[in-house]
Amino acid sequence: MTAKTVRAAVLLIGDELLSGRTQDVNLQTIAKFMAPLGVQITEARVVADVPEEIVAAVNDLRAKYDYLFTTGGIGPTHDDKTADAIAAAFGVGIDVHPEARAILEAHYKGPGNLNEARLRMARLPLGASLVPNPVSKAPGFQMDNVFVMAGVPSIMRGMLEGVGPRIKGGAVVRSRAVRGKGVREGDIAAPLEALEAATDGVVTFGSYPWFGPDGYGLQLVARSSDAAALEKAAEDLKALIKAQGAEPEDVEPS
Amino acid sequence: MTAKTVRAAVLLIGDELLSGRTQDVNLQTIAKFMAPLGVQITEARVVADVPEEIVAAVNDLRAKYDYLFTTGGIGPTHDDKTADAIAAAFGVGIDVHPEARAILEAHYKGPGNLNEARLRMARLPLGASLVPNPVSKAPGFQMDNVFVMAGVPSIMRGMLEGVGPRIKGGAVVRSRAVRGKGVREGDIAAPLEALEAATDGVVTFGSYPWFGPDGYGLQLVARSSDAAALEKAAEDLKALIKAQGAEPEDVEPS
Repeated sequence: MTAKTVRAAVLLIGDELLSGRTQDVNLQTIAKFMAPLGVQITEARVVADVPEEIVAAVNDLRAKYDYLFTTGGIGPTHDDKTADAIAAAFGVGIDVHPEARAILEAHYKGPGNLNEARLRMARLPLGASLVPNPVSKAPGFQMDNVFVMAGVPSIMRGMLEGVGPRIKGGAVVRSRAVRGKGVREGDIAAPLEALEAATDGVVTFGSYPWFGPDGYGLQLVARSSDAAALEKAAEDLKALIKAQGAEPEDVEPS
Repeated sequence: MTAKTVRAAVLLIGDELLSGRTQDVNLQTIAKFMAPLGVQITEARVVADVPEEIVAAVNDLRAKYDYLFTTGGIGPTHDDKTADAIAAAFGVGIDVHPEARAILEAHYKGPGNLNEARLRMARLPLGASLVPNPVSKAPGFQMDNVFVMAGVPSIMRGMLEGVGPRIKGGAVVRSRAVRGKGVREGDIAAPLEALEAATDGVVTFGSYPWFGPDGYGLQLVARSSDAAALEKAAEDLKALIKAQGAEPEDVEPS
């Protein structure tokens, strides 16, 4: 019996990621968090804070994959357009969510401090359920198979902890990586392809050259949901590197 | 007379970016390189090394934007599927490009070393023009408004230098950023929105909270292609931060 493959997309929302001002780190965090739960991130997109672009991407991706994880655009300022866009994508209204309002009221201690801008963070699409925010309280939310999280990495990581238990994962794809210093892609391409072909789709192999002040080399990666096949693949990769006259090094699992 | 807006997309190709094993840095590099040339990165996507996914994304994005920049998947191994996918996207054949072959022959000194795997790196879609690779020689290429570059960041940066002179940019959008320690988004949301409204679309403003071991604060960003309006916007942002009792700090232009 083989577990099915569960696939997800990530949608990163924010002008600052496309202008180059901010380096995204959320995609990698989400991918690493979801992999052991049996969810493969299969596609990612980055869009600006433009409602039509967000709506189009959300509707594309939520239909195409089992899950969609979004980050960014749920704060209190005018450039935070994600909640309205999610409501538009689902064709539902948007209003202050009583539970979200209560969380913000408790956090901002007294209605005087919970001004109109902050109350915007309690405006959620109708039908949304909350995703707790252990860092700064204003919650993320879930609509059907879409999880909407903050863009600030520390807050996003906190929200992921609340998302995890709601995920129904499938087969867990694990990877093994081996490095060989001084090994060149062009010299191992043919045997690497033969290794992959011999597994008949059970293992996929990737080859990633690196260059740096200390020289150059290759990182070879095997991915599979079959533990025994993955173990054999890692040994095969080591043999491939040894055959090039280099000493294979295990790389930490990511 | 106002220069027109030139918009581009970035397509990052590679399983390793979606598995979480590799942290992408190419999007930010491309965005920062293109901004002063007058090209706004408006959308980005990350897809796996799957031909149909690459073809679909390439055809979507090259039609939607003035330029498309891709990274990844042009090496000598079996998981390098970008050149074939670009040929398929354009509906043209693919063959060894004489100029690319000559570059590789010179680099690998003698036909014995230029094996079949390495020769794959000279297989380009018919009609492609080369983008030089100052780092490891195997070239990138251009098809119409699509520039195809390597995934290894140091090589990609080298290729960008060859892409730059071929770009016809438009209005240059510049940004100014100001930080305020201890300032909270919810307290400046209304005046910030009023600032943006008052510029009638000439300046856009973004608000980015940060949290860390040293406390919290806000980075406010103004973007505009109008230098005088941008200067005024930066002063307005400083006044906004001062009104919160904090000392505004200029942030290095990105």
